Amino acid sequence: MPETIFSKILRGEVPCHTVFEDDRVLAFLDIFPLAPGHTLVIPKEPAATLDALSDESAAAVGRVLPRVCRAVMKATGASAYNVLQNNGPDAHQAVFHVHFHVIPKSGAGGLGIVWNAGRLDPAGASSMARAIASAL
Amino acid sequence: MPETIFSKILRGEVPCHTVFEDDRVLAFLDIFPLAPGHTLVIPKEPAATLDALSDESAAAVGRVLPRVCRAVMKATGASAYNVLQNNGPDAHQAVFHVHFHVIPKSGAGGLGIVWNAGRLDPAGASSMARAIASAL
Repeated sequence: MPETIFSKILRGEVPCHTVFEDDRVLAFLDIFPLAPGHTLVIPKEPAATLDALSDESAAAVGRVLPRVCRAVMKATGASAYNVLQNNGPDAHQAVFHVHFHVIPKSGAGGLGIVWNAGRLDPAGASSMARAIASAL
Repeated sequence: MPETIFSKILRGEVPCHTVFEDDRVLAFLDIFPLAPGHTLVIPKEPAATLDALSDESAAAVGRVLPRVCRAVMKATGASAYNVLQNNGPDAHQAVFHVHFHVIPKSGAGGLGIVWNAGRLDPAGASSMARAIASAL
């Protein structure tokens, strides 16, 4: 995996505003926030995208998310928030080290979402579900 | 926590297209997909928002996410995707049982993101980071 700004942060070569750290996980303020309190939760394990992350690191990140979310909400006073994790340039990923955004929704601030949903085709759905299940 | 459609799915009273299940987690196709293969990963524990979920269930969901993401990408052929988890009506949550969306990005399909980022104010950042860390 290529070097990223998060590698430098994890090695302490670039400063950050840390809010949480344990053996596997670091959480710190995003320097380009969508809203006050916008926090990144990252595994220490280097993996560019979530599909490449070990189960153990993914579990460790998952375990700490509720706690970080509670703290961000308490500190910001926000009552709604999004958790977003992007994979690939086409999906808005800019730093190629797995990171979960915790983004408070505050007035006009926060994550903008465009939700153009369709309806699941029952026939296609059965074969899609089988294809995914068999790829697991 | 009020009853949701996901409670009925978990009890087997409403059908779904299951792709994965273990003791703590269920994954199934979203019936209102943003793209083919749009999958929901939910804890069996009833919690309306991520901040209310137990550490154990959050870890179990986190642990299975890489595996589900790999399978969705393999089955759909997509090379980019977003993982999104919404909390609160103002943050686009529609079903009040925690769920992680795995949304393949395929051409015009997938999650639409509006990213109006600011820049972190260093002075405010220090006090914000302290406020979050002390709320953990």
